[in-house]
Amino acid sequence: MSRNQMGLLLVVSGPAGVGKGTINAALLERHEDMRMSVSATTRAPRPGEIDGVHYFFKTEEAFERMIAAGDFLEYTRVFDMNYYGTPKSFVLDEMEAGRSVILEIDVEGGMNVKRSFPDAVLIFIAPPSMSQLKERLIGRRTETPEQIERRFQTAFLEVERAKAYDYVVINNVLDVAVSRVEQILQAERCRCLRNQAFLNQLTGGKQL
Amino acid sequence: MSRNQMGLLLVVSGPAGVGKGTINAALLERHEDMRMSVSATTRAPRPGEIDGVHYFFKTEEAFERMIAAGDFLEYTRVFDMNYYGTPKSFVLDEMEAGRSVILEIDVEGGMNVKRSFPDAVLIFIAPPSMSQLKERLIGRRTETPEQIERRFQTAFLEVERAKAYDYVVINNVLDVAVSRVEQILQAERCRCLRNQAFLNQLTGGKQL
Repeated sequence: MSRNQMGLLLVVSGPAGVGKGTINAALLERHEDMRMSVSATTRAPRPGEIDGVHYFFKTEEAFERMIAAGDFLEYTRVFDMNYYGTPKSFVLDEMEAGRSVILEIDVEGGMNVKRSFPDAVLIFIAPPSMSQLKERLIGRRTETPEQIERRFQTAFLEVERAKAYDYVVINNVLDVAVSRVEQILQAERCRCLRNQAFLNQLTGGKQL
Repeated sequence: MSRNQMGLLLVVSGPAGVGKGTINAALLERHEDMRMSVSATTRAPRPGEIDGVHYFFKTEEAFERMIAAGDFLEYTRVFDMNYYGTPKSFVLDEMEAGRSVILEIDVEGGMNVKRSFPDAVLIFIAPPSMSQLKERLIGRRTETPEQIERRFQTAFLEVERAKAYDYVVINNVLDVAVSRVEQILQAERCRCLRNQAFLNQLTGGKQL
């Protein structure tokens, strides 16, 4: 399969409350050839969570064996000591089958993915303004005031780090933001770097 | 004016007969905020050509003074000893007024533009196949068989060099090719590199 028929690896990051989950859900609904990456974790399944659908649930030993084997695109250990990571095999299998894979991870994870997989497309979803982000965080009523404050402070760090991302999409109107991501994917498919096989083939048949 | 409101510099290249002129005409018709760059040349005006519209007509002395002053984004001297070049001032003025500028030049010129202006977006228009390109060259009946053969040989060199371009758009169906160029422009407007001012402004108002 020539390279331009391979799926893309799309990293979508953004502060809590910016609407990246809604954008990703819209992308999955509109494009049959897109998949959400399934993360591996050592935390216990919550009621209703299915292994291989919501997460790949792993023991700490199994997770650490995968780390040692280089089986992750990126992984992190969070403050409660649970591991979270993106298994390479799932992502690469989907891409080789021509499907694009979305990774919804934080900016640090995104930068780690870029290091191990430079072809990844990194998109940061930004709010129109920080005051609008705060309003959305308060409006969704899922966090305590302390949690809101912590997420809001983290948001500043995320924006600061996102300057090294490939693209920024402002989520003001949802449909516009989704279209922007779609346009970025179409443009990325046209990159010469992803179409060397086509260009080689074009000049290869010089006897024409 | 923040950087994302500036126009883009778009270099459109491709072999003779690939349809780049048609694509550019469609872009200009659809987008009021796009302009075609006007080249400077030392060749004599042909009947009907207007100075400042079709070309900026210059004497050899005037052209060489502009070279010495660094007034060109790129220039070349062709086999008949006439100079052709892209004056910087026209392009930069339009971009600063928020308009995107299209440069229809060959791949060598495009690479020269990229060196002096790394923000330029380089798009190569490719035929679906070289045999289809040859059919189009023959079909337009504007060249002698010898000219067709020479242009066809040049086309191979152009495709070879285009591997270092940013994007390749295959001109199979005109409307699809025009849309691809539009998507590339939209995606480029979302590049983090072009939106540092917005990202700075977002975190700058931390007291919110």
